Amino acid sequence: MESSPDNGSGFANSEKVYINGSGSVRVPARRIHLENGEPPMYVYDTSGPQGHSVREGLPSLRRPWIEARGDVQEVAPSHSPENPDAPEIPHGLKRETVLRGKDNVTQMHYARRGTITPEMEFLAIRENVEPEFVRSEVARGRAIIPANINHPESEPMIIGRNFLVKINANIGNSVVTSSIDEEVEKLHWAVKWGADTAMDLSTGSDIHETREWIIRNSPVPIGTVPIYQALEKVGGVAEDLNFDIFMETLVEQAEQGVDYFTIHAGVLLRYIPLTAQRVTGIVSRGGSIMAKWCLAHHEENFLYTHFRDICELMKRYDISFSLGDGLRPGAIADANDAPQFAELETQGELTGIAWEYDVQVMNEGPGHIPMHLIKENVDRQMDLCSEAPFYTLGPLTTDIAPGYDHITSAIGAAMIGWYGTAMLCYVTPKEHLGLPNRQDVKDGVIAYKIAAHAADLAKGHPGAQAWDDAISKARFEFRWEDQFNLSLDPDTARKFHDETLPAAGAKLAHFCSMCGPQFCSMKITQDVREYAERKGLEVDEALDAGMEEKAEEFRQKGREIYQEA
Amino acid sequence: MESSPDNGSGFANSEKVYINGSGSVRVPARRIHLENGEPPMYVYDTSGPQGHSVREGLPSLRRPWIEARGDVQEVAPSHSPENPDAPEIPHGLKRETVLRGKDNVTQMHYARRGTITPEMEFLAIRENVEPEFVRSEVARGRAIIPANINHPESEPMIIGRNFLVKINANIGNSVVTSSIDEEVEKLHWAVKWGADTAMDLSTGSDIHETREWIIRNSPVPIGTVPIYQALEKVGGVAEDLNFDIFMETLVEQAEQGVDYFTIHAGVLLRYIPLTAQRVTGIVSRGGSIMAKWCLAHHEENFLYTHFRDICELMKRYDISFSLGDGLRPGAIADANDAPQFAELETQGELTGIAWEYDVQVMNEGPGHIPMHLIKENVDRQMDLCSEAPFYTLGPLTTDIAPGYDHITSAIGAAMIGWYGTAMLCYVTPKEHLGLPNRQDVKDGVIAYKIAAHAADLAKGHPGAQAWDDAISKARFEFRWEDQFNLSLDPDTARKFHDETLPAAGAKLAHFCSMCGPQFCSMKITQDVREYAERKGLEVDEALDAGMEEKAEEFRQKGREIYQEA
Repeated sequence: MESSPDNGSGFANSEKVYINGSGSVRVPARRIHLENGEPPMYVYDTSGPQGHSVREGLPSLRRPWIEARGDVQEVAPSHSPENPDAPEIPHGLKRETVLRGKDNVTQMHYARRGTITPEMEFLAIRENVEPEFVRSEVARGRAIIPANINHPESEPMIIGRNFLVKINANIGNSVVTSSIDEEVEKLHWAVKWGADTAMDLSTGSDIHETREWIIRNSPVPIGTVPIYQALEKVGGVAEDLNFDIFMETLVEQAEQGVDYFTIHAGVLLRYIPLTAQRVTGIVSRGGSIMAKWCLAHHEENFLYTHFRDICELMKRYDISFSLGDGLRPGAIADANDAPQFAELETQGELTGIAWEYDVQVMNEGPGHIPMHLIKENVDRQMDLCSEAPFYTLGPLTTDIAPGYDHITSAIGAAMIGWYGTAMLCYVTPKEHLGLPNRQDVKDGVIAYKIAAHAADLAKGHPGAQAWDDAISKARFEFRWEDQFNLSLDPDTARKFHDETLPAAGAKLAHFCSMCGPQFCSMKITQDVREYAERKGLEVDEALDAGMEEKAEEFRQKGREIYQEA
Repeated sequence: MESSPDNGSGFANSEKVYINGSGSVRVPARRIHLENGEPPMYVYDTSGPQGHSVREGLPSLRRPWIEARGDVQEVAPSHSPENPDAPEIPHGLKRETVLRGKDNVTQMHYARRGTITPEMEFLAIRENVEPEFVRSEVARGRAIIPANINHPESEPMIIGRNFLVKINANIGNSVVTSSIDEEVEKLHWAVKWGADTAMDLSTGSDIHETREWIIRNSPVPIGTVPIYQALEKVGGVAEDLNFDIFMETLVEQAEQGVDYFTIHAGVLLRYIPLTAQRVTGIVSRGGSIMAKWCLAHHEENFLYTHFRDICELMKRYDISFSLGDGLRPGAIADANDAPQFAELETQGELTGIAWEYDVQVMNEGPGHIPMHLIKENVDRQMDLCSEAPFYTLGPLTTDIAPGYDHITSAIGAAMIGWYGTAMLCYVTPKEHLGLPNRQDVKDGVIAYKIAAHAADLAKGHPGAQAWDDAISKARFEFRWEDQFNLSLDPDTARKFHDETLPAAGAKLAHFCSMCGPQFCSMKITQDVREYAERKGLEVDEALDAGMEEKAEEFRQKGREIYQEA
């Protein structure tokens, strides 16, 4: 695996283009060329720079912007892998020094001081809004730009309810299966199809090396759940965790360039008994680890008691919080229950504390929620967490379809996105059953791109509908190739069409295998419109009284049209 | 194809059972046996009687109920196939006589007279409500029981917003592809996975024979769009259609046993110009055919002008109207526009007329609708159509994902079901691209079972959540086989699990490949609960002050548990 030729490419009639801002700000987009003189369609592009060796990593796009701020120092990395059997990190990915902020280096810090950073300018172009709007949303905490100074390879993206709804893809190996190569390939596959961020949820012994490969090759922000690695460091014994080991892990990951940390600081000792009556108890890995620690020590969660220390660390790397929802419901029966909302209250409290340090924050949310209980989650989160971005897993709207939870959850994800959730964590068809493979990753990403775009449409996001209109126009005009190329997954659209009508000529046909030529409603509609046009008539004129003669002409003409078919 | 061994069978640990009512009322259900002494789960079963030859058809379950009402006469069929090249109908499927009502024989007619029919009693058991409630809902038109007296093979089902949300699967060949055998097999496949009704949308020359095979073998009501066959009868020339040919077609299909007719009587001449500015014009096949006819003749739609004649016919067979929405939007851009809502108003007018004849009615609805515009559709339909059941196609919530329209539309279907839509017409992944094959039919049905069940949950349908609770409990208790067997698609759930952990022992494991043993939140939660229980403690007692010693014990014990893993 020396390069990733299909990373972001492989879209027919498409090319990557860059829109120039000031200085070195160049914003990627994908331009889809259309037929029949139609203007090209530009779509948001997460695939990142192409053609780079995964052993060299991506170019350091943001490095000059970070250096220009003059707020960082180069230091030797504090940590190196402890596992002598771990696969070596290729030379091209190794870094002699890493960056550390002299003091506060967060985008929120600059936003609050009134500074529009290059990252913000980049995002204004990417989201088609004013730079000042980006700044003000970040300043008030309603949007975040996850952008660790040690991940300069990332292209800025913004998470907030006044921007396009984003999606996250989880990758990462487990002790049971998969290799580093596979995970990097899954990352590139996920961003090709549109993942806006990725979480590396690796466990097992190669956790440090896997993460290094992933971050150096990732054009999107990377999130982690640091407690997983901390647990590895204490041999998997939750009770042996302590804050020092956790902080050591945070520094290690901060230096590698993780952009956001899921931290389950809201799982308080007194909330744990509230889960005793649940059908599925605690279903968050991080939440259950902290619950076990709390009970075993009969002490308050050290992530909560040391939260300010964590903020002090994160502000020096500009790592964003993803405040974990360790007590999220894992079943319809447990939705919107006392422990879930108790933790949300604490997430709100912690959001306020993080903001004291100008550390960017989003809040994680559920989970398994029936449709009628979804909106309450957004309303409460906005209220308790002062409109910090909400980042939900689904939610799944029923429990009865393992194997199809990308669908049970896309329903909930679309709705919660419409209600104001800023980022949707994907669920793959393998949820509850096994680790996703390449196809599952794609299925999860596509289902969530659908949910996110449906939410953008429902929120009336400016420009969102242009994409739908372009593909619908292509459909109506029987521009089959354009319809394929404009779809979220051109390969599948083309393949499905060709299953019944593979001949090249069928892609010029004014019908398809669904209805055949005589029953094609679109063809008939076009016949009607063309008739009216040829006669120099508006369709409504054709309906005027005394048009019997025209009707006769139409009958004749109509017959001819049909007889050609 | 002599029998259908997998029709409704093939579910591990499941058996078909019948719940007895009075007389010959026996209501099917599927009983899923669970492990560990858990009570069995009973689920709604659409698969029909098993083990019958498709050349003999299904037993005539309802025949004695129909005869006992004494309101029908046996007559010779008016029509036989006109196509000498058409495949012969097997002897076992042929009927010497068909039934015709002496006068009004509809379930609504009996309901309004205060009679609880065996069909209603059957449905009371099937839906777990009182028979009187079924009767009253049918009497006031808020629910329908599609049950042609010539389709005695069908097991009664009810469509109405106070009952379980139903789904329809479209089958049928087109001139381009597929055979009769394939269509019957698709029907059995669709009902195995849970289709509540099927529409035979066949076009082409074998349309009569295909329908005969399908109806004689269908345990669920069959709907059609009769204008398709009428159009075949006039050689595909829409302008040559007339009411006589249409009525002849209705009689032919009425005698075969079609349970509901989609009739596009709401496509009025004056509405057609309203579609001129649309992005995708008219996307309903029936709608575009009638539009062409109206324009060519400059006359009002003959389905509208002769609507009372149609009612007179349908009341004698108890065929239900599915009032077609010929002007439904085919693109996000066209959602909730003037022609769509103009037609809905006429659907309301026609509903009232049908009810004068005690003919059962449901109204078809869209289509392509962004999420924020969905609810308005239900609200208007309920108002304009006096709460007659709503039956929608999706709606698709975005246009940009051809190849995945079972997902774009499952989102809209779940929501519109929650808002009160009674039946959801499935959309397969092939929508807009080609004719669905066997896998597409299954994918469409499963996506719509998810949507319908999610809607049942959100509406708080009594008993709906028991299924979710049973599977969630199985999940939490690591009863893998039960989790598979309780899922909508046990085959896929099992296959996905086995991809990473195929060994039989893995199905007893207290973890899976997603997280591995150390990171399994459910295992950790159980460890915590077991600990508390063994110590004779409530979890909250474990949190009391002075529990430091217990905490120490737990640490020791916890270590042991982990070291086993």
